[in-house]
Amino acid sequence: MIFRTDLAMELEEQHRSEQIPGIVSQDETVGNLTINKIQITSEEAAQKIGKPIGEYVTVTVPPFSDDVTSANEEIEAMAQQIQRLINDDKGLVLVAGLGNHQITPDALGPKVIEGIIATRHIKGEVAEAAGLSHLRPVAAIAPGVLGQTGIETGEVVSSIVKDIQPSCVVAVDALASRSLDRLGCTVQISNTGISPGSGVANTRKELSKNSLGVPVVSIGVPTVVDGTTLAGDLLQAKEMMSDEQIRERFEPRGAMMMVTPREIDLVIQRAAKAISLAINRALQPKMSLDDIVYLSE
Amino acid sequence: MIFRTDLAMELEEQHRSEQIPGIVSQDETVGNLTINKIQITSEEAAQKIGKPIGEYVTVTVPPFSDDVTSANEEIEAMAQQIQRLINDDKGLVLVAGLGNHQITPDALGPKVIEGIIATRHIKGEVAEAAGLSHLRPVAAIAPGVLGQTGIETGEVVSSIVKDIQPSCVVAVDALASRSLDRLGCTVQISNTGISPGSGVANTRKELSKNSLGVPVVSIGVPTVVDGTTLAGDLLQAKEMMSDEQIRERFEPRGAMMMVTPREIDLVIQRAAKAISLAINRALQPKMSLDDIVYLSE
Amino acid sequence: MIFRTDLAMELEEQHRSEQIPGIVSQDETVGNLTINKIQITSEEAAQKIGKPIGEYVTVTVPPFSDDVTSANEEIEAMAQQIQRLINDDKGLVLVAGLGNHQITPDALGPKVIEGIIATRHIKGEVAEAAGLSHLRPVAAIAPGVLGQTGIETGEVVSSIVKDIQPSCVVAVDALASRSLDRLGCTVQISNTGISPGSGVANTRKELSKNSLGVPVVSIGVPTVVDGTTLAGDLLQAKEMMSDEQIRERFEPRGAMMMVTPREIDLVIQRAAKAISLAINRALQPKMSLDDIVYLSE
Amino acid sequence: MIFRTDLAMELEEQHRSEQIPGIVSQDETVGNLTINKIQITSEEAAQKIGKPIGEYVTVTVPPFSDDVTSANEEIEAMAQQIQRLINDDKGLVLVAGLGNHQITPDALGPKVIEGIIATRHIKGEVAEAAGLSHLRPVAAIAPGVLGQTGIETGEVVSSIVKDIQPSCVVAVDALASRSLDRLGCTVQISNTGISPGSGVANTRKELSKNSLGVPVVSIGVPTVVDGTTLAGDLLQAKEMMSDEQIRERFEPRGAMMMVTPREIDLVIQRAAKAISLAINRALQPKMSLDDIVYLSE
Repeated sequence: MIFRTDLAMELEEQHRSEQIPGIVSQDETVGNLTINKIQITSEEAAQKIGKPIGEYVTVTVPPFSDDVTSANEEIEAMAQQIQRLINDDKGLVLVAGLGNHQITPDALGPKVIEGIIATRHIKGEVAEAAGLSHLRPVAAIAPGVLGQTGIETGEVVSSIVKDIQPSCVVAVDALASRSLDRLGCTVQISNTGISPGSGVANTRKELSKNSLGVPVVSIGVPTVVDGTTLAGDLLQAKEMMSDEQIRERFEPRGAMMMVTPREIDLVIQRAAKAISLAINRALQPKMSLDDIVYLSE
Repeated sequence: MIFRTDLAMELEEQHRSEQIPGIVSQDETVGNLTINKIQITSEEAAQKIGKPIGEYVTVTVPPFSDDVTSANEEIEAMAQQIQRLINDDKGLVLVAGLGNHQITPDALGPKVIEGIIATRHIKGEVAEAAGLSHLRPVAAIAPGVLGQTGIETGEVVSSIVKDIQPSCVVAVDALASRSLDRLGCTVQISNTGISPGSGVANTRKELSKNSLGVPVVSIGVPTVVDGTTLAGDLLQAKEMMSDEQIRERFEPRGAMMMVTPREIDLVIQRAAKAISLAINRALQPKMSLDDIVYLSE
Repeated sequence: MIFRTDLAMELEEQHRSEQIPGIVSQDETVGNLTINKIQITSEEAAQKIGKPIGEYVTVTVPPFSDDVTSANEEIEAMAQQIQRLINDDKGLVLVAGLGNHQITPDALGPKVIEGIIATRHIKGEVAEAAGLSHLRPVAAIAPGVLGQTGIETGEVVSSIVKDIQPSCVVAVDALASRSLDRLGCTVQISNTGISPGSGVANTRKELSKNSLGVPVVSIGVPTVVDGTTLAGDLLQAKEMMSDEQIRERFEPRGAMMMVTPREIDLVIQRAAKAISLAINRALQPKMSLDDIVYLSE
Repeated sequence: MIFRTDLAMELEEQHRSEQIPGIVSQDETVGNLTINKIQITSEEAAQKIGKPIGEYVTVTVPPFSDDVTSANEEIEAMAQQIQRLINDDKGLVLVAGLGNHQITPDALGPKVIEGIIATRHIKGEVAEAAGLSHLRPVAAIAPGVLGQTGIETGEVVSSIVKDIQPSCVVAVDALASRSLDRLGCTVQISNTGISPGSGVANTRKELSKNSLGVPVVSIGVPTVVDGTTLAGDLLQAKEMMSDEQIRERFEPRGAMMMVTPREIDLVIQRAAKAISLAINRALQPKMSLDDIVYLSE
């Protein structure tokens, strides 16, 4: 991987010319949105791309369609994809919001958790009395980060999975992308969980069917760009320089700089709201979006 | 229990005239502080007082000694008591900050966790290289509340305890007291854990040696007063009316009102800082208070 | 004034039996809401009630109508009353959010300002290009509090009024009420400005046509109750004791305790959102509520 | 100006080879700190550098001296320079914290204001009784930003200056620098006020002796880097390419991207604390740093 990115779509773009077998990429337009679906089906393709076998859906909102209608469209489209990848409509779902709530670009996961409607504890007579007996059981947790807790994110989630035994985990995380243009307006949804070493903080343990024993659907939004990657990306816009040349040129100083736009607070706030609404919508299809908006506040 | 309070000291005061066997209460003055120690040694006393057998230490800072010196005195005194009640100086400690970070008077626990120096993950060569091989392993977690997570606080803590196997849990929580005067300037430290049904939120599961399998030291600060209790307390100041009379008079309307002072943000901020420093000091006796202050920020 | 309250409605209730001339009180029901209008028309009535001559409108939302529909009804009803009391639909309006943003129950004013759509700087070609030439000019400021700034709130507002010369000031502030039941679900709108010595913080300068030279519409939400008042209110519920008896009984200890409910963060957040939407709606009648909701976020 | 920067030190470096008359640059080492002083004395130099005639002091903390001792050294050094540039030790000082408190990299000014000890309102007998009659009068205000208030920052400050008539204004603002390395660890103090068009938000009015009628000392910390500048800076590290070449290459896409590091929350928190302590120390030389730290919290 030349450029640091967690987006399968960006990795696939870079390797497109190689025509790797075992990768299918498809674009679809829904209203103002672009939905890209990448299927990685062979171990060889997984190796080359640097992403596990599985499906990666990327929903992109056009930057200038900043209005109410497209906001709802976006939520419905994300909800559909989440529902499709979860592929089970009854069991308990554990939503895990990864990241550090004190570092804005890494706070996406914990902020999404604040908007998730937890229902696992509303049971039996109480649920019936409140007219809520049709709700799917949902639990939600923000496990914190290793530096704050002294416990790997994966350990916390795994401990809780063992005890409450969900049928599926939905893991939300901030990602790194190749380009500043994508920060906050792109959402990646995948059925492969979260791989070690990816993400904003770069030190995380695997969260996957392999490590947890249940399917893991991951939802990520790019919120940072690596400094070197940014320089290279700007550079390539004008002049076709090879990845290797750029890397060699910038690596020594740019390597550890993760940058984020000035308006990161707004980016995170909007993205967290949209994703928590989409997850709620996917998990409680019998509730209207209006009711979900009202309950999520 | 006539008045709603989580403070053993207030419960003992109310029953003092009854001369219950199995209770010893002792006051001590250290600089500007008052330290009260209550030992409950018989099951009968535990029943009457409404608190499990064990030791309850209450550290009170005089309201008008609002200066730097007494702040340090307070931290050192609390640290000593915490250390004494933990009664083990080597094993892994899990600090759990209970409560809801979005409700200020209930946010004490989560805010304390932000100041805890987690060290469990600093091991082996890394620790030696950083000169940190002498540190006691500490993990820290804010498990959230049932309404937000769908999982009982006790379940989350218990899941993690099973996996990381600490030798002791330190649980921090906001409490209810009888009097507004005590809010924010009183700290109760006990070796009995946290009992069900106490606390600000009133719906919590037990966190104790019984439920977790390891000793639980609890640290609590009163941050709310029940509306009825407040009215009764103000009333009794002037005229000796019996508890029962007051209760009968106020219960119907005042029962569910938990009130907190206007300056609750400041109260929580100061208390959380003092308690996280005291816990760090108790767990890392080889570090100076200055170093702890610097690392906790 | 026996009980400490900033609500004209509560003061009028207390004096109703006296049949003071120069006071008219009227109740109206609109959907789920109750709207009370009090006209104080004589200096004698103003003296007895402790409020300046003018109109006081109190909008009350029933506590159990916690749904989307009544939220919109509430906003529209408040917007209508604000519009009626401003009584001018073209000139520049300065919205001033009074209070201390660091003390939750006093943060209502500053939080409302965060939601106000400021338009004074969108002028000429820019406004036309953006299709915004029909907007009323609005400026918005949170002047802070004396203890933080060293400048009286009234001085800051007055300095700015002199320079930008609005045709009207809308001042938003947190209030004290007599009863915990009213906190957060009652809004008082008046055309008399803000009187000295009222409000949560108790140390403020007048903000009125008299002091600023332009009409001042004030909007307030009760967020605190005085400790003595609370005790008295609970007491009177059961047993008819005179105001004087209660005062005499509680004053010495309860005088300075301002209390607020445990859920004050939620109360402030919801009230601030509703009021900023209502002000925006009142000032920009050509925009739909949906557009206002979208722009206010 | 090829690179976008608000630091006189960076501008001077770029033009050093030209040997412009009317510029004197001097470096000094104090403990762990480097203090650079630039005097711009001629109009020609001011034009070439793009900064008004006056003095610019830049205090740089070495990145790896992250300990208590150097924190105090830094505060004392900044306080000395602020005091020297204010050059008057009695009159009322108005501290103005510029920027948008809702956008983290732009929130430096408002956050500094939260730590300023305002004293203008502590007068006469009250001051004497509290032993505070020796304090210099200080007022502090966060005027907000045009987009939120509809009023130019310069208008708000100017309105208040007219009314309270300070002998000096201290204006605090977030800056743009050329290099990510400087973000958060460099402070520029100048006696020339704030020039139009500089700063993070790029749309501000002049704040200077010229516009306000009183001397303006400005204090700024770089918190953002322009995307193009960043790319160019990384590029130049390896290969000497001219400013013009870099600009031509990147401008079209990178122009409007202001980037900030992932840890911006921590950078702002630490910088705001250090600067508010330094200002308090400069304005109240009779108070000890310990007392100032205690009062500023």
